[in-house]
Amino acid sequence: MTKLVLIRHGESIANQQHVFTGWNDVALTEQGQREAVAAGAKLNRLHLAFSAVHTSYLKRAIQSANIVLDELDQLWIPQYKTWRLNERHYGALRGRKKPVVRAKVGEDQFMQWRRSFTAVPPRLDQVMPKRRYARIGIREPRAESLQMAYERLLPYWQDQLAPRLLQHQNQLVVAHGSSLRALIKYLEQLSDDAIDGVEVPNAEPIIYTFDEHLHMQQKQILA
Amino acid sequence: MTKLVLIRHGESIANQQHVFTGWNDVALTEQGQREAVAAGAKLNRLHLAFSAVHTSYLKRAIQSANIVLDELDQLWIPQYKTWRLNERHYGALRGRKKPVVRAKVGEDQFMQWRRSFTAVPPRLDQVMPKRRYARIGIREPRAESLQMAYERLLPYWQDQLAPRLLQHQNQLVVAHGSSLRALIKYLEQLSDDAIDGVEVPNAEPIIYTFDEHLHMQQKQILA
Repeated sequence: MTKLVLIRHGESIANQQHVFTGWNDVALTEQGQREAVAAGAKLNRLHLAFSAVHTSYLKRAIQSANIVLDELDQLWIPQYKTWRLNERHYGALRGRKKPVVRAKVGEDQFMQWRRSFTAVPPRLDQVMPKRRYARIGIREPRAESLQMAYERLLPYWQDQLAPRLLQHQNQLVVAHGSSLRALIKYLEQLSDDAIDGVEVPNAEPIIYTFDEHLHMQQKQILA
Repeated sequence: MTKLVLIRHGESIANQQHVFTGWNDVALTEQGQREAVAAGAKLNRLHLAFSAVHTSYLKRAIQSANIVLDELDQLWIPQYKTWRLNERHYGALRGRKKPVVRAKVGEDQFMQWRRSFTAVPPRLDQVMPKRRYARIGIREPRAESLQMAYERLLPYWQDQLAPRLLQHQNQLVVAHGSSLRALIKYLEQLSDDAIDGVEVPNAEPIIYTFDEHLHMQQKQILA
């Protein structure tokens, strides 16, 4: 039996301020650091040995991953960072306060942008190239629906996560609310509608157990 | 002009207690964490963009690397961990207090073990296999001279560091007193005797500047 553990980062400065974030790169708050320590401590009680940790290009996830690994006393395992695990790109909503956007566009549109699988937030007019994406030939998107995030995430599952799990190696993924929702949709084969209702709280490890054919046997949440 | 930056980890619990450590895995002290923050802040003023960070399998180096990357706002760069950058293995001296060993064996033998290029510390009778080395087929040594550490470090320079520097990519290495002494011996072509006098203080960035043929142009220390 092989385990895949998903953890959403601890509280970020943007979570605290109720701001849309996406690919903006914001740090954990002190509360978020404590949440990551607690997530690591809970996970540590299961005595899982991981072969690798996978995280995004964004510091709130990387900081959380480092804290969790330290708690597990597995700082030495390989750490892979990929833009494919980045949060969904919130387009022109990024940096804007959620209550202000909600008041302006109404509850229906607001929840569509936040929760629906296909709704694309308003696009950015232009994107300033950042070194971290330019160096690997990736253009930052102008906005992403959850579906767009799902589609760019899927190759990482297929090429990096699934093969390691099939070799009976436990994997740890520390990422973001929407990138984890996309992965959960795939793993649990949820419909486009069903994923609307799925929320991933900060820093609560989700543990999937797979058999040797990568069929899911169990899901456990360390709330 | 391409830069290679070497940083020894901040103060560890073993440094604080004057204990031989080597491949024992001990954490930074709070003082050591502050030293790593200060090293990162100093380095940050040079505005260097790194393509990767390289560190050991030992948490005092990995914790220091993570702190430095956070200060540089470059947490997202690839991080490579290798046993080849591990501290020299102190054999049966590991875990023993330096003043006690010095009193027992005398100053000459003590300094030989600590500083000479070829002296091998007393060997361990046996080594309990650890997952981190067993999984990659590496047997933990029973003791290492600085020369033995040099020889296992050199392939990492040849295969991982030098090629990236030759592609004009700045590299950051966060490692240990003796593994960095070994690398410095190679880079500066120091004699076996000359390396005796070289000390690498905790958390002071050493910056080498190379030309396009990997000839060293400058050495700078951010003390």
